[in-house]
Amino acid sequence: MDVLICTAKEQGAWRDALAACLPEARVHAGLDAPPCDYAVVWKPPAALFAAQPRLKALFSLGAGVDGLLAMPSLPRDVPLVRMEDVGMAAQMIEYALYVVLRRFRRFAEYAAAQAEGRWAPRSYRDRHDFPIGVLGLGVLGGAVARALADFGFAVSGWSRTVKTIDGVQCEHGSLGLDAVLGSSELLLVFLPLTGDTEGLLDRERLAKLPEGAALANLSRGELIDDEALLDALDSGWISEAYLDVFAREPLPADHRYWMHPRVRMTPHVAALTPHDVACEQVAEKIRKLEAGEPVSGVVDRVRGY
Amino acid sequence: MDVLICTAKEQGAWRDALAACLPEARVHAGLDAPPCDYAVVWKPPAALFAAQPRLKALFSLGAGVDGLLAMPSLPRDVPLVRMEDVGMAAQMIEYALYVVLRRFRRFAEYAAAQAEGRWAPRSYRDRHDFPIGVLGLGVLGGAVARALADFGFAVSGWSRTVKTIDGVQCEHGSLGLDAVLGSSELLLVFLPLTGDTEGLLDRERLAKLPEGAALANLSRGELIDDEALLDALDSGWISEAYLDVFAREPLPADHRYWMHPRVRMTPHVAALTPHDVACEQVAEKIRKLEAGEPVSGVVDRVRGY
Repeated sequence: MDVLICTAKEQGAWRDALAACLPEARVHAGLDAPPCDYAVVWKPPAALFAAQPRLKALFSLGAGVDGLLAMPSLPRDVPLVRMEDVGMAAQMIEYALYVVLRRFRRFAEYAAAQAEGRWAPRSYRDRHDFPIGVLGLGVLGGAVARALADFGFAVSGWSRTVKTIDGVQCEHGSLGLDAVLGSSELLLVFLPLTGDTEGLLDRERLAKLPEGAALANLSRGELIDDEALLDALDSGWISEAYLDVFAREPLPADHRYWMHPRVRMTPHVAALTPHDVACEQVAEKIRKLEAGEPVSGVVDRVRGY
Repeated sequence: MDVLICTAKEQGAWRDALAACLPEARVHAGLDAPPCDYAVVWKPPAALFAAQPRLKALFSLGAGVDGLLAMPSLPRDVPLVRMEDVGMAAQMIEYALYVVLRRFRRFAEYAAAQAEGRWAPRSYRDRHDFPIGVLGLGVLGGAVARALADFGFAVSGWSRTVKTIDGVQCEHGSLGLDAVLGSSELLLVFLPLTGDTEGLLDRERLAKLPEGAALANLSRGELIDDEALLDALDSGWISEAYLDVFAREPLPADHRYWMHPRVRMTPHVAALTPHDVACEQVAEKIRKLEAGEPVSGVVDRVRGY
């Protein structure tokens, strides 16, 4: 069996990790590989697929596959399998919990008071008086919603399909989206990027958040209308935006997000894929496919994830 | 039965909350009250105790009683009962977890990179590779140490007496203190203020932390030698100090902590005592004492807490 690894970064480390998990396979790296049975990719060049005519399945090393699906050269008849949780949910929970605690316990307010030399204690409030909205209730968003509800926060969630999560007020449909937006002091965005979700958080929908709300986007930059968000930040309608993802990455040097006083940026690090765990998942799925068994995480190309 | 409430702040709200929890008692407020059976106090004036000659017990509304013990007029023969956890441990866990996540996930580093216009992703590391030290393993520090260990962080703890906490490397004695200091990338301070702990974190002990470590003091300002800490922050040996408590509060306007770029101040809000839960605890203990039963939380005046 021949398996190809092709990534935009750290290809050697990925090859070694995959070879360790799949000792029964010949693991090749890069564009010069012979025709392989499986390919494992992250941001591959467009030329890759023409050189790989006999793939039985294609594995994405990321949870989001919008970039792959947008490639015209992507073979239409080869199953595309996305990365499922490999410790990424735990990392998303860490990031989300940091943002939640920072807002809930008013650390940004206290930092502002310190800068002004003001000793200004505020009273404590109960966790269930802090309403959090979670858009997207899949592997990552669902895990975050559940974790925050377990902590005692008031969590509502929205997803395309009907979902049920213990302790989370689950909504769907456009009325459901309005309900979640209207009640969220903090909005956490975990939606996949699809034709339906691109630009979902536009001017009109951002205006449905309560005045002074905050948001965190840990999924894809294209979900948000950047100009609308910048206007909402300028006016103070949205008091803080935690942004890990951007429509163009690295974020262009002249983008207004860089220096905006209400923007807290991180460089797409909310959930990183650990090499060993990710390769173990891919190896197990390859073994199942070889044995003729079904695997989870196969992308539905119509819905887009 | 007559019960006195006397607090430096919000005395009316405290009186109402206590009266609701103790309908069988006459609840008085302030210095003009008749001699009472019990007094419930927070930062009371020194004159209070001379006017209350027949107290059966004295209740502190705070967990720390160093201020009361330092009052010369405090009656020596009346049991002093400190507040035990009334949701304060949960608040301490929130604050500590915020600091832990901020350091572990490098949010301060990313903020600095943003300010400089740098897109600089860092790799993820495992929680068990992030060593945290907790000084003081009582009701609050012990709960924080346990919670952080449950999250998977590498936690070591130090206390005066020998303690055992699942998942926490527990130390005591001066060698144990050196071991905890030497291995902590983040040091969380929850010690009570006593003759033994005042100034414990002096120049020599701060130098035992690894270079670039951070600390958070959520207990009492007097535990730290402020000049030594400022020098360690100036040199960068300590990269960040999260300070909720200060030897003088409010912190004097000309104190260097206010404007220090490595200091994150909050105005003694890490754990606030909720009126209703606190009064319910006091009411239950008063009923036990009236019934001749023992109560927990009685202060040992020799050890100082």
